Amino acid sequence: MKIGIIGGSGKTGSAVYQEAQKRGHEPTAFVRSEEKGHAVLGADARLLVKDAFELTKADLTQFDVIIDAFAVPMGSGTSYLHLDLLTQLVHELRQTETRLFVIIGAASLKLEDGRRLLDQLLAMPDHEKWIGTPLNQTYELEFLQMVDNVDWVAVSPQRNFGPGPTNGYVMGTDKIMVDSNGKSELSNGNMALAILDEIETPKHRHQRFTVRNQEVK
Amino acid sequence: MKIGIIGGSGKTGSAVYQEAQKRGHEPTAFVRSEEKGHAVLGADARLLVKDAFELTKADLTQFDVIIDAFAVPMGSGTSYLHLDLLTQLVHELRQTETRLFVIIGAASLKLEDGRRLLDQLLAMPDHEKWIGTPLNQTYELEFLQMVDNVDWVAVSPQRNFGPGPTNGYVMGTDKIMVDSNGKSELSNGNMALAILDEIETPKHRHQRFTVRNQEVK
Repeated sequence: MKIGIIGGSGKTGSAVYQEAQKRGHEPTAFVRSEEKGHAVLGADARLLVKDAFELTKADLTQFDVIIDAFAVPMGSGTSYLHLDLLTQLVHELRQTETRLFVIIGAASLKLEDGRRLLDQLLAMPDHEKWIGTPLNQTYELEFLQMVDNVDWVAVSPQRNFGPGPTNGYVMGTDKIMVDSNGKSELSNGNMALAILDEIETPKHRHQRFTVRNQEVK
Repeated sequence: MKIGIIGGSGKTGSAVYQEAQKRGHEPTAFVRSEEKGHAVLGADARLLVKDAFELTKADLTQFDVIIDAFAVPMGSGTSYLHLDLLTQLVHELRQTETRLFVIIGAASLKLEDGRRLLDQLLAMPDHEKWIGTPLNQTYELEFLQMVDNVDWVAVSPQRNFGPGPTNGYVMGTDKIMVDSNGKSELSNGNMALAILDEIETPKHRHQRFTVRNQEVK
């Protein structure tokens, strides 16, 4: 399938690119820096060099799936751009055949007591300094739930999301997941596996799901 | 003040234009049809002829206030454009000095029993045919509540909104209002009075208010 990846040279975006390539799909990384794109994805990587906010309907609808792996640097004060980009993508993809796959943070997942992780974060001291990204990622889910004429799906990682083994994942719905050691973890590589599986065999529509790392036996 | 009015040749937009003109402000109507703009607002009307979705940051920030009086024809199947246009305006106006004044439908107002008018509408038979506009206007309010770096304010009319005398209004907050005859009514002209009063003497920030017609004694 033709897969366009916004933030394609980032940690998750590049893992998705590589997994898609490995499975014989045709991924294209949307990047702002051609140099960084090739440095991360290789000299022969398929790139579309453009600011994400400049992407047109024609740019987007040539793909079967658009992955929104856009991220702003933590503490940049521009975390609202997560929400703004999503609203633009939705506008361009309404009533089209292109699927929209949004990676949103874990903050909108529910804790055991039914509250959202976001509510726990909002109760922490000095959260004003870093709450922007989890807050706007939660808004992204709320915004998606207003949209019925885009074929959207969203995925959230776990509390800890970053480097780690690519060895498989366990599927969840809308709750924080923990392994037998009480850890709530997902690697970028396992996120890529889950995303490619969902692309190849769609199981969610107008829904957000989550995955955690499989435990090493 | 310099006031830009999206949907400036529509029923409410043109009432706002005329009231602003009368009070010595400098209104500009953003219209798609120059011919209709002049037909409704006069041969010497200040127009900016452009599709609302093509308005740039530079177009918008030359004004002190932008009024979003955009409306799609009922039953056009494109009521989601209300929400999409608002998300674009918010994106362009973040961290600017230009105030955003959004006219949203009455559906998000609360009834006496605490439910929203929207919930009552959703319980009506065959609502699928016409629910798009009230639903997306309710989404507009929910979206605005995610935005803290735009100087926004929103106003809702009453159940009945349309032609009628311009004779004054009664101010409310977030509930459907009724007069002594049980009528929930607002005229386009009284809406324009309330909007200009709020522009001249801001009393609401990051809030939605509502107004109803004053009763004729």
